[in-house]
Amino acid sequence: MSSPSLPTNIATADEQNITVRGRDLTREMMGETSFGEFFYLHLTGEMPTESELRIFDTLLITVVEHGVTPSVIAARLTYDSAPEAVQGAVASGLLGAGSTFLGSMENAAEMVQEGVKRTANGEDATAVALEMVEKRERLPGFGHPLHEPTDPRTDALFELLEKEGFDGDYLAFMRAVQAATEEVYGTELLINATGAIGVGISELGLDPIVGRGIALVARSAGLVGHLNEEIEQPMARDIWAVVEDNVEYQS
Amino acid sequence: MSSPSLPTNIATADEQNITVRGRDLTREMMGETSFGEFFYLHLTGEMPTESELRIFDTLLITVVEHGVTPSVIAARLTYDSAPEAVQGAVASGLLGAGSTFLGSMENAAEMVQEGVKRTANGEDATAVALEMVEKRERLPGFGHPLHEPTDPRTDALFELLEKEGFDGDYLAFMRAVQAATEEVYGTELLINATGAIGVGISELGLDPIVGRGIALVARSAGLVGHLNEEIEQPMARDIWAVVEDNVEYQS
Amino acid sequence: MSSPSLPTNIATADEQNITVRGRDLTREMMGETSFGEFFYLHLTGEMPTESELRIFDTLLITVVEHGVTPSVIAARLTYDSAPEAVQGAVASGLLGAGSTFLGSMENAAEMVQEGVKRTANGEDATAVALEMVEKRERLPGFGHPLHEPTDPRTDALFELLEKEGFDGDYLAFMRAVQAATEEVYGTELLINATGAIGVGISELGLDPIVGRGIALVARSAGLVGHLNEEIEQPMARDIWAVVEDNVEYQS
Amino acid sequence: MSSPSLPTNIATADEQNITVRGRDLTREMMGETSFGEFFYLHLTGEMPTESELRIFDTLLITVVEHGVTPSVIAARLTYDSAPEAVQGAVASGLLGAGSTFLGSMENAAEMVQEGVKRTANGEDATAVALEMVEKRERLPGFGHPLHEPTDPRTDALFELLEKEGFDGDYLAFMRAVQAATEEVYGTELLINATGAIGVGISELGLDPIVGRGIALVARSAGLVGHLNEEIEQPMARDIWAVVEDNVEYQS
Repeated sequence: MSSPSLPTNIATADEQNITVRGRDLTREMMGETSFGEFFYLHLTGEMPTESELRIFDTLLITVVEHGVTPSVIAARLTYDSAPEAVQGAVASGLLGAGSTFLGSMENAAEMVQEGVKRTANGEDATAVALEMVEKRERLPGFGHPLHEPTDPRTDALFELLEKEGFDGDYLAFMRAVQAATEEVYGTELLINATGAIGVGISELGLDPIVGRGIALVARSAGLVGHLNEEIEQPMARDIWAVVEDNVEYQS
Repeated sequence: MSSPSLPTNIATADEQNITVRGRDLTREMMGETSFGEFFYLHLTGEMPTESELRIFDTLLITVVEHGVTPSVIAARLTYDSAPEAVQGAVASGLLGAGSTFLGSMENAAEMVQEGVKRTANGEDATAVALEMVEKRERLPGFGHPLHEPTDPRTDALFELLEKEGFDGDYLAFMRAVQAATEEVYGTELLINATGAIGVGISELGLDPIVGRGIALVARSAGLVGHLNEEIEQPMARDIWAVVEDNVEYQS
Repeated sequence: MSSPSLPTNIATADEQNITVRGRDLTREMMGETSFGEFFYLHLTGEMPTESELRIFDTLLITVVEHGVTPSVIAARLTYDSAPEAVQGAVASGLLGAGSTFLGSMENAAEMVQEGVKRTANGEDATAVALEMVEKRERLPGFGHPLHEPTDPRTDALFELLEKEGFDGDYLAFMRAVQAATEEVYGTELLINATGAIGVGISELGLDPIVGRGIALVARSAGLVGHLNEEIEQPMARDIWAVVEDNVEYQS
Repeated sequence: MSSPSLPTNIATADEQNITVRGRDLTREMMGETSFGEFFYLHLTGEMPTESELRIFDTLLITVVEHGVTPSVIAARLTYDSAPEAVQGAVASGLLGAGSTFLGSMENAAEMVQEGVKRTANGEDATAVALEMVEKRERLPGFGHPLHEPTDPRTDALFELLEKEGFDGDYLAFMRAVQAATEEVYGTELLINATGAIGVGISELGLDPIVGRGIALVARSAGLVGHLNEEIEQPMARDIWAVVEDNVEYQS
């Protein structure tokens, strides 16, 4: 029986050449290409324009750092228990990059992409937005426990989209959804960073699932930074002590 | 009993401000700062110069992509088995970023940092290099199964270090080690990409362990790119079939 | 602000006593209690009867081993790349224990638990089963690429349930579903091992989600066994070679 | 080029037969074999005797549960962030099963196996033990922050080894090491559970590395039990709150 072939469009190498997405890694890209450009090319097969790159880089840096989150706690504890394997500590933290916090980024992107599609097919944007707010129990990309009256990351990201001329239909639809929240809830909800990122991904023409990938890479960088601090200035044992002080066994 | 405090220098946030390493994320950095700059700042507490950034970005892009490696195979298989959790697929691939392939990057950085330190203390570089080659069974950062007569990534990286004026003592010591390989083995071994990266990290003034972090972030990007392709054009089931065809049970 | 308390019913310890689910680990259980009993107690808070234990142990051993599966491939490759961290290799394999293969176990348990509930509320079992088969595109717990005309694990498990007097409503409902497959598809589908395990979990009175936990523990044991073999008789490098031989780069 | 074959001694299957380590899974083992027996067979290729099984099961249950440890904290936080992937939460917790806590189990097994080997070659056990205590900065398997004057798990495990006639040279050597601690430190250190398990593994004739595997399987069961509780009675959000209350940003 002949083996199936395993086709890929990403990369190949021989003795003197490494080719990534049709470009020569060592002669065309090393020393010339930033990480953001390279990652964009790797994901999409195309080099970003200057504006696309600025937006893509900004989406990435927006999700690198969120303080001592559950992901960071898991990674620091894991490093302390298994310092021989930094990769395990990063993996442990990444495993928390799931539906609870990142799902809303994807869901917000799906929501605005569906909204724009329906509007393009002749439906009224205001009516579609209103229907979406009414139908959903929990609106992806809205509300925040700390930030108010706005999420400052949303302000910065929308300002950038405008400056770069990427304030298109997806941003407009997100604002229609926001207006609909006032009608339904009696008060306008704020658009949080995950909602803004869902808009940014859509304005770049990327699939909602790509948002998950962006977040995982950005989060890796954040976890590496925290582990770098953990090595110099450990808090894992004190995290454990703080938790243990509050555990109560109930028979 | 009072709880221990958990100090961190990385980040803090309030209603309208997010501060990372003393800088204002939304007003100073979003729209201005590339991912490479942000990650460098997060790791070191300092913004990179233009030259440092070009080198840092190049170190990152050098290790994003290596074709269908064990890490990529693990990630693609895991995605196929658990498509509900992209983070698990990325984590599964990252767990292979261990001592076999990345250890040599750290070890090469440690070797040249030790060499430069001993030379600064008055020892002769040629003698130190010779002693290191003679003592070690396996020299970190030398040799490659595919590339010859040189590793083209090493050529590109060293050329960049020279162009940016970062061709200092660490690069010189690495070349002394290479010269010593000819004396000991009768043939000059090639410096591979992990060796060159070990030099690059050292010329930037970074700790060897930081090399591990750089590699984990770069590898995350590569894995995300491969999973993005896996979703569109799956090869996981065929990988399994190819492997299974060759398994032989021996009772 | 006072810290929230973190209540748990599982375990506590002091200088001379370790208590798990209200029992004394060192004086009551060590030397007396098998792993299966202990795990059942840990999960449910109750010790199993002899029959429950026999069934529970059998559910566990049914899913330990499935040959060189994607999970095993991922774990062996990860071990080869990061031999310093056996825990990472096991974790890498476990991450493939997701919806594709294990989801059907949970889904089958949910299906029979829903069926029995509706029957208890007065609906006709045959009609409910028929409706379920007609509604679903993919029936959880039915069909197998290798085993035929039956899955021998299903035969063994159902025989055990009968012998131990645990052949109750859930097993009867699963057979009603199987009969309905003949009516709908014109041919009776076989009940596979994940379907049989879904029945077994339900007959023990356990939640469908517990099936996932059983599978994860059993799979850990299988992965540990394969890694133990990998250490003595490695196949990881040859797996990589076999895969790489079939990769085709398409520009 | 012909593909390499991938030999395994563990398992094979055809339409009606599943063979594990030369035994028929469905006809010989299901309904007859406990999880402990099956895992022992999978690991070693041999069925355990009744005594070996009792000891092996006891080693397993000794390490299932240690309260709200860093592993459990990581797993509970990960589950809360990614409830769609229970396997990710278990993996996240397992990644903490590294050198800090489990290394001492392996190291203790290595120590007593080396000690018994040297004694068999004619050296004096007391002298070897004394040399080992003097040489090592940190003695694997000794001391405990909570238990005193003894670790009750050690008492229970050694009592079982005696009862089953497995109190051989390894246990005797461990006691010689303990006696040597009195001579070196002026006070006899206690043998903790990881030290006792290192002895138990050795008395069963197993490799030190097998201890790591036993611990990973046992720990999986403990994590599954905690996640099962987390689903019913969540503490993850309160863990996060407790930690966050104590974080202090230092610019």
